[in-house]
Amino acid sequence: MGDIVRDSDFTLQLLPSPQIRKNPISGRWTLIATDRALRPLDEPDVPELCPFCEGHERETPPELLARREPGTLPNGPGWRVRVIPNRFPAVRIGADGAVRTDGLFEELGGIGSHEVIIDCPHHEVRFGALPVEAIREVIGVWRDRILAHHAQDGLKYVQIFKNKGIEAGASLGHNHSQLIALPLVPSAVLEEIDSGRSYFELKGRCLFCDLIDHERAAGARVVAENEHFVVVCAYAALWPFETWVLPKRHRSHFERSSDAELRGLASTLGDLLRRFDAGLKAPPYNLVLHTAPLRVEALPHYHWHLELLPRLTQPAGFEWGTGWHINPVPPEQAAAFLREVKVE
Amino acid sequence: MGDIVRDSDFTLQLLPSPQIRKNPISGRWTLIATDRALRPLDEPDVPELCPFCEGHERETPPELLARREPGTLPNGPGWRVRVIPNRFPAVRIGADGAVRTDGLFEELGGIGSHEVIIDCPHHEVRFGALPVEAIREVIGVWRDRILAHHAQDGLKYVQIFKNKGIEAGASLGHNHSQLIALPLVPSAVLEEIDSGRSYFELKGRCLFCDLIDHERAAGARVVAENEHFVVVCAYAALWPFETWVLPKRHRSHFERSSDAELRGLASTLGDLLRRFDAGLKAPPYNLVLHTAPLRVEALPHYHWHLELLPRLTQPAGFEWGTGWHINPVPPEQAAAFLREVKVE
Repeated sequence: MGDIVRDSDFTLQLLPSPQIRKNPISGRWTLIATDRALRPLDEPDVPELCPFCEGHERETPPELLARREPGTLPNGPGWRVRVIPNRFPAVRIGADGAVRTDGLFEELGGIGSHEVIIDCPHHEVRFGALPVEAIREVIGVWRDRILAHHAQDGLKYVQIFKNKGIEAGASLGHNHSQLIALPLVPSAVLEEIDSGRSYFELKGRCLFCDLIDHERAAGARVVAENEHFVVVCAYAALWPFETWVLPKRHRSHFERSSDAELRGLASTLGDLLRRFDAGLKAPPYNLVLHTAPLRVEALPHYHWHLELLPRLTQPAGFEWGTGWHINPVPPEQAAAFLREVKVE
Repeated sequence: MGDIVRDSDFTLQLLPSPQIRKNPISGRWTLIATDRALRPLDEPDVPELCPFCEGHERETPPELLARREPGTLPNGPGWRVRVIPNRFPAVRIGADGAVRTDGLFEELGGIGSHEVIIDCPHHEVRFGALPVEAIREVIGVWRDRILAHHAQDGLKYVQIFKNKGIEAGASLGHNHSQLIALPLVPSAVLEEIDSGRSYFELKGRCLFCDLIDHERAAGARVVAENEHFVVVCAYAALWPFETWVLPKRHRSHFERSSDAELRGLASTLGDLLRRFDAGLKAPPYNLVLHTAPLRVEALPHYHWHLELLPRLTQPAGFEWGTGWHINPVPPEQAAAFLREVKVE
């Protein structure tokens, strides 16, 4: 967006606050967030200019949380993981959360928070290249930041995600995760919860637990499995090599995972990303966490999981027109390939 | 995809037939279509190598239809608009359309057709740069190809779309449209029909007709208006500068438009695209037609329209994780800008 604002005669007027709007025809939601247009998209990816590298703490907003070496000071060197507010937020703490209607349309203030989790102090661009203990610490920070948002009135959901590569929407190469807390449960999560609820009402079992059993029995789409997790290429993958990481133990809330589970997740996810990097030449990807909404009780019909969405195809008119995707790689072939990739 | 198949150790096995699959958790549909992986993505965009340019007819499959000068022969020069089968189809005529289930999952054969409409014989890359009569002729071909599919058993919907620019998924620069006929009504169209039906049941009026009245009264999001059409920046635009072209006369089926309406559409769409090209430096975009399913009667609650989706932002982890979009440009500002752009 930086580009369009710069190269054309269009001059963006910043809104005082982001807005959440719903299209009454398509039923789809959008965040109108002018601050996002200010985001630089074409900065060179070198440590000297990287605001996320250790020693450059002054170039970011003050930290909200950091895992630090004993004796080091906030906003200085000595950290291992560091959480900062996003300088170009999609939603904002203290935004006017009022609902405005004018008959056909309804608009909600974009209240929420948008944070960046800097995964490591050095200029590493591959999450899978971090030691398993470093990955575990990042995942632990995801958990802690979700837990911190449980206390905030008016927020319903925390979306954790990672963008890797320009094609996947990343504007900085240095490894980072993001968190966006929202005043509504987003559509994709609601749809999963609704599917889970319908299935549970019909069968009395968790759809995700049944899917895990089904995939383990079938085998063709299983990439890896260990004590705590099973990794499968999604049966109806929207993306080539789309892969899900599912905890074997039924649990609706990621943030209620045990320490042992988080250690298992770090090891599982690190191994999976190294398979992607080695087998598919470090592809661009989005990684998204789907978990239960904030402050609801444990749900028997929902089951948290991670979705790894490699960005090797470009959704185009067919995808945006139909809502369907075209995926040239059968998930069974993707899984067979990923199973065999050699990683250290 | 060409790239990943070439650069990695992964070797794709072609499926005998495309498959349509639904993810039971997300409810989302995907076409597993291995032929799409063979599509070249990095050919230089020059007329000498362009298979769509006049004189290169032998480089494409035989034409299905062409608007030709009198006395010229099929698959030779002398055409103005030419329709050919897509060499790398997402669905296929004569595919095995059987449904296969294995408990949790259900798969449908990818029966259908995938056509390319070559919009002009010369190497023009901007649709809006064509004379209005040439645009009208292309739009008339869209209508005729949809009508031709009404006769085909087993097909439920025809999706017409255009991809402009690499960022919007186009693999060739030469102006073209695409048609994909499907054995199911796709999700995005079903959602619009469902919204329209619910509204009609509640109010006894068409949601789209009411939206047109609402937008004309409000004015802030109207880009242009003439006898037959109104052009608005969508209230809850998912994309910066997302713009809809709506026929004023209620009609569920695009292909039942009158000749006068098609002439009006050519003029409206040409003007709109020239505004985009001049004001936003010929941005990449997808253009999609939403119309009623094949072989259903005229619907009082559905209203065909075109959606112009500029691709100036890159959907990333947030968008794929939540189903929501982030749009940095308020539609009111987009409309004000587009209204003022000077075009010949």
